[in-house]
Amino acid sequence: MQAVGLITEYNPLHNGHRYHLQRAQQLTGADCVVVVMSGNWLQRGEPAILDKWTRAKLALANGADLVIELPVFFAAQPAHLFARGGIELLSALNCTSVVFGAEHPELDFQRLTAAIAANQGDFSHYNATYATQFNSALQAATGVTLTAANDMLSFCYYTANQALAHPMRLVPIKRQQADHATTAIATGSSYASGTAVRQAAFDQNWGSLKSVVPTDTLTALTTQRLQRWADFWPFLQYQLLTVDIAHSGQYDQMAEGLEYRMQTMAQRATSFDDFIHQVKSKRYTYTRLQRVATAALLQLTQAEVQAAQAHNYLRVLGFTPKGQAYLHQVKKQLPLPLYTKINQKLRQHALNLDYRAGRVYQLINGQSQDLYRQPWQLPAIIG
Amino acid sequence: MQAVGLITEYNPLHNGHRYHLQRAQQLTGADCVVVVMSGNWLQRGEPAILDKWTRAKLALANGADLVIELPVFFAAQPAHLFARGGIELLSALNCTSVVFGAEHPELDFQRLTAAIAANQGDFSHYNATYATQFNSALQAATGVTLTAANDMLSFCYYTANQALAHPMRLVPIKRQQADHATTAIATGSSYASGTAVRQAAFDQNWGSLKSVVPTDTLTALTTQRLQRWADFWPFLQYQLLTVDIAHSGQYDQMAEGLEYRMQTMAQRATSFDDFIHQVKSKRYTYTRLQRVATAALLQLTQAEVQAAQAHNYLRVLGFTPKGQAYLHQVKKQLPLPLYTKINQKLRQHALNLDYRAGRVYQLINGQSQDLYRQPWQLPAIIG
Repeated sequence: MQAVGLITEYNPLHNGHRYHLQRAQQLTGADCVVVVMSGNWLQRGEPAILDKWTRAKLALANGADLVIELPVFFAAQPAHLFARGGIELLSALNCTSVVFGAEHPELDFQRLTAAIAANQGDFSHYNATYATQFNSALQAATGVTLTAANDMLSFCYYTANQALAHPMRLVPIKRQQADHATTAIATGSSYASGTAVRQAAFDQNWGSLKSVVPTDTLTALTTQRLQRWADFWPFLQYQLLTVDIAHSGQYDQMAEGLEYRMQTMAQRATSFDDFIHQVKSKRYTYTRLQRVATAALLQLTQAEVQAAQAHNYLRVLGFTPKGQAYLHQVKKQLPLPLYTKINQKLRQHALNLDYRAGRVYQLINGQSQDLYRQPWQLPAIIG
Repeated sequence: MQAVGLITEYNPLHNGHRYHLQRAQQLTGADCVVVVMSGNWLQRGEPAILDKWTRAKLALANGADLVIELPVFFAAQPAHLFARGGIELLSALNCTSVVFGAEHPELDFQRLTAAIAANQGDFSHYNATYATQFNSALQAATGVTLTAANDMLSFCYYTANQALAHPMRLVPIKRQQADHATTAIATGSSYASGTAVRQAAFDQNWGSLKSVVPTDTLTALTTQRLQRWADFWPFLQYQLLTVDIAHSGQYDQMAEGLEYRMQTMAQRATSFDDFIHQVKSKRYTYTRLQRVATAALLQLTQAEVQAAQAHNYLRVLGFTPKGQAYLHQVKKQLPLPLYTKINQKLRQHALNLDYRAGRVYQLINGQSQDLYRQPWQLPAIIG
């Protein structure tokens, strides 16, 4: 059996994702579709609208054969680390190829990556001007600038893949909708951006959602407790008001002095949006600030995140019979630990950060995220 | 002018407290009644039912001339430290005498204190058997056992007072109701325990309260957002779920290994009462556990509490003209800093722990506890 890999968030799974799953299988002729998916906290530093179990099940029902959780210490990180964590897991599972959406799949990412390979070290710091620095180097070396989010991410996949002893085949495909951040659902369209889908879900605009998400996504959105930053704002505010300022300075991705600004604004702000808006300055993007807020909420320090990143693992969220067969095939040569159930030892040690991230998420929806959970075993839906 | 001092919590102020204020003045013939009062967090490790400003105003309206806040690092502490902090402030204000309620004011506290003065060091540790150890030493030395809460506290006042270069005159008086913890309000009685008053207030049993609290206390109880531990449980649970276990081990009054037990129970518990009940064991009293929970909620470490205890201060919450005149009289020779307004520097440094304690309290009632607040200036009501 050969496998194709996808790196995803499914926030929530919509028709564009379903197309991606189908195309990935068609383009590669793979026997098994492996999906690495962010858990409850996402790359843009926000909680997932639906929890990781719900989203994993939707993935299995819409074309995935095996769903692996991208640990929070890679998921809620800048693009290059998000990409590194995902590529590492797909490679560990011996995937032959990786298929991902880009705004401009026609770009020669291989060449672009090679052109500034020497600069890589310079961009691996957490700082506000990462994208700017990166693009000015890229522009100088190649004349190309990457402004679209998924082009950037594609570049990061190439970079991470090049670092492997045995790189996989990378297959960028055209995304179904051009603008990732479009907030409206066009009448008659089968596709909408994640942002538009989430907005419609929070607005309970079920009619407009029907045409752009699979039926089971719609069911999940109408029946589950949808989550967003506003739900966690009381906890974040409380945390920033009580934490010792020296300690908050150690939170992951916190910039020099930003902890003081965050503490001051936590005193004044009346909502999460108000808070982020007040903390915002030219130095930091909203996404960066949201990731810092996530680290603060989960009390993730830079030291523990970096230590965890050196010990990636394969946490199985679910599989179809095909996924199970594939897992059985690769199981004996896995270079990373494979976890299907979480016991107390895992909770306290190897999986501690994911457990913490899930436990905080669970404060709102009341659904256990790790304890007593075991991987979904779903019948294959597509063939 | 001469002053008599009281050490109080007023949770909330009831007729017993009013009697205490009047008797203190009558017994000593003092010109000014100085009250040291816990702020928003109390000796039993719980939030006050009404905030410190509301309670200070009630004190001024019912016989106090000057109200000083007992800082949280003395207020939410075992009896001997609570007593030490209070006595230190009254002595700093040059009070001539201190009047307090005891179950058995006829006891020769002076003799009891002297009898086990040599043992004092042994009881100053935070451990579950403090009262037991203390009483066995006292029993051995004097044949007396102190079981009632206010007898114990009286003993602590004597001990703290003896440590002063110029001890004040201590005047124990009989409390108006024998049992501090009685939860019912007896029909026709003008007095009830604090526990009974709080219970009636949370039950909105205004009719029964009318006879046992002053009118302005009743008004405050019916119009303000009443607070209790249940309000803060979501924050405490969140904190215990996310904090690094090595850090929670440093919280004030945390016993060896108790942090693990608290973390485990925070996962399971469904309410604050459930949590404390599950954490409870023979080693710890409920009061002790509530104080640890308060430290965890406010993220107070033992190191910062101990450092703060070495730098007590006089935070003024309000005064009558008499209190103001008295303050003017003693102002020039105060051995401790006097604070009437809180600026940013105080908030970040000297008053940081009180500010934090107030800011968390404020999360529930929405009333600023430090910023933009200045001492009440009330006309004298009695005297």
